[in-house]
Amino acid sequence: MTDRIREFLRTRREDGPCVVVDLDVVRTNYQAFARALPDTRVFYAVKANPDAAILQALEEMGSSFDCASVGEIDMVLATGAGADRVSFGNTIKKERDIERAFKLGVRLFAVDSYEEAEKIARVAPRAKVFCRILCDGAGAEWPLSRKFGCEPEMAADVLEHAYRLGLQAYGVSFHVGSQQKNVNAWDGALASAAQIFRACAERGISLSMVNLGGGFPTRYLQDVPAAISYGEAIFSSLRKHFGNAIPETIMEPGRGMVGNAGLIETEVVLISKKSETDALRWVYLDIGKFGGLAETMDEAIRYPLRTPRDGDDTAPCVLAGPTCDSADVLYEKTPVELPLSLSIGDKVIIEACGAYTTTYSAVAFNGFPPLKSYVI
Amino acid sequence: MTDRIREFLRTRREDGPCVVVDLDVVRTNYQAFARALPDTRVFYAVKANPDAAILQALEEMGSSFDCASVGEIDMVLATGAGADRVSFGNTIKKERDIERAFKLGVRLFAVDSYEEAEKIARVAPRAKVFCRILCDGAGAEWPLSRKFGCEPEMAADVLEHAYRLGLQAYGVSFHVGSQQKNVNAWDGALASAAQIFRACAERGISLSMVNLGGGFPTRYLQDVPAAISYGEAIFSSLRKHFGNAIPETIMEPGRGMVGNAGLIETEVVLISKKSETDALRWVYLDIGKFGGLAETMDEAIRYPLRTPRDGDDTAPCVLAGPTCDSADVLYEKTPVELPLSLSIGDKVIIEACGAYTTTYSAVAFNGFPPLKSYVI
Repeated sequence: MTDRIREFLRTRREDGPCVVVDLDVVRTNYQAFARALPDTRVFYAVKANPDAAILQALEEMGSSFDCASVGEIDMVLATGAGADRVSFGNTIKKERDIERAFKLGVRLFAVDSYEEAEKIARVAPRAKVFCRILCDGAGAEWPLSRKFGCEPEMAADVLEHAYRLGLQAYGVSFHVGSQQKNVNAWDGALASAAQIFRACAERGISLSMVNLGGGFPTRYLQDVPAAISYGEAIFSSLRKHFGNAIPETIMEPGRGMVGNAGLIETEVVLISKKSETDALRWVYLDIGKFGGLAETMDEAIRYPLRTPRDGDDTAPCVLAGPTCDSADVLYEKTPVELPLSLSIGDKVIIEACGAYTTTYSAVAFNGFPPLKSYVI
Repeated sequence: MTDRIREFLRTRREDGPCVVVDLDVVRTNYQAFARALPDTRVFYAVKANPDAAILQALEEMGSSFDCASVGEIDMVLATGAGADRVSFGNTIKKERDIERAFKLGVRLFAVDSYEEAEKIARVAPRAKVFCRILCDGAGAEWPLSRKFGCEPEMAADVLEHAYRLGLQAYGVSFHVGSQQKNVNAWDGALASAAQIFRACAERGISLSMVNLGGGFPTRYLQDVPAAISYGEAIFSSLRKHFGNAIPETIMEPGRGMVGNAGLIETEVVLISKKSETDALRWVYLDIGKFGGLAETMDEAIRYPLRTPRDGDDTAPCVLAGPTCDSADVLYEKTPVELPLSLSIGDKVIIEACGAYTTTYSAVAFNGFPPLKSYVI
């Protein structure tokens, strides 16, 4: 917890859970990414936390932005950033949304299929497109699926199709999986990207750019490598696969940019047992899976917890949220150790909550208001 | 689809997915529940769909309301219903929320622990409490956990504790699991309830009420028993376990009250394959897990789909949402059969979406607005 957040929480009087993000940490993270790969443009993944103050701070530092929707593009442009600093990185776009983005000045679009390239060609003539390829995501903590990207073997065909439709076949993107702790995870994908560059060159199509995606981790329970280590490993793989013809590169940190900049303050609503002889306590907080902690799904992301009783003897607890939904349990398969002295009404700090919390919150499930967010 | 909904959708001009609920179906469902167990008070589980028009219609029909939060209690009281028609059914409540509810006139509270009874005794003197017991939920489609309820062996102790604290030990509740298709699922829980009634009677505490909970299903892909079948089975179990001293009973239908009254209209954003040889198509809709279809988690609830191409030849598809989250996949382990002729831009109807959709929707994940809801 930073001093600024500690001071903010000390004087907060409102009821209910909240996220607090310290912009100084976001700025420090931005600088670390910019230094780790100095020739790589940083496109902040807006979906991680689209708070206007965060976007404004990053705009002022020179960041570009990876947007998932026209809604996010509007938020970025509202900071005063030019549309040349926007990538419409979602591979699943309505044609009329592509058209809206194009009219707003956006010229860089993701595709992973022929069909998406055709939509873009119809309403965003001569735009740049990059093709996302599948990537196995080994080493990542947040489950990747096959949802985004095509098999690398298909990418050159998709890019050629885009080229023949009058678009600029611009490059290749991939995502090595969110919360990726293996700094070498980019190597295989960069080998595939180089192969696609060669396949396109053989067809007379010159690609320019590799989008390194996101995946840069934030610290939860375990230490994670620093941005500089990722930069070194990625640069080494770029050299290995592209020789001295290193392409233009961009990266899309989201979790790595804001995850450790924020925390959630929550309150213990109930501590109880299911029977007189139960070894486990159940600890219920005033935030759960539907209030902003969606990434606890399948217990994927395990957040560090801090209590006012830390240092006292601990015992394992099931941790759950406040709603009347039986699925609103955060950690049960692997219980959490919490102080035996923890009491109803205690405030608990959930660390590293700057990313993927505020916007995941349900509008009003069980009549609870959405998660409050403060960016200071 | 009802004629009223069909007519509404025919003239709708707005973009984006929406839920449409037909109040006539809600009214029919209410009557079916009221007739199925004529001596049982119906407490609609507000969390299933708290739309003001639904609450108003049920208020006018004489329904009572099961509320999960003070927010939901406020919504119910706004219909003009008296606080005597409210049960604060969440077993996890902040003490100040219990106090707020008590000041609003609410006198009926759920507990499943000593600690919760103590909170109620402090701020809601002489209120009625019922103790929720664990129930195995066999036969239910939406996963139950051990989150709510204590072991039946502990319930008499919790109720005695409440009684000694000056509260009215009022009864027992349980929940047989959501989307419960076995009409006999209530039998075991009613046997436990009768046992708790006897255990309390031996201590000089006379319980009055059994809360039968919810669990009444709605029709998704398969037919479900009618309300009357549940009524007959439950009444038979009440007779069996309580003899001719049948207690006051209440029930809390949520899904069964509104599930089949609504549907979602969505649009096909993209249909593509991951490779030239892929057997599966990926069909991406403009609604997904974070836009209101949270109950597709682990593919638990399988919604019926209707397309404008029904009747054409079909093939299996993975079905996914529009966000840049790789977890936003609806059905993949068990793909869905969709027409080969299905096209980008087609409208797809997702049936039986009146419950647990609107309020699960994320506030703005990926910059997409929350699900629109129309109650007609």
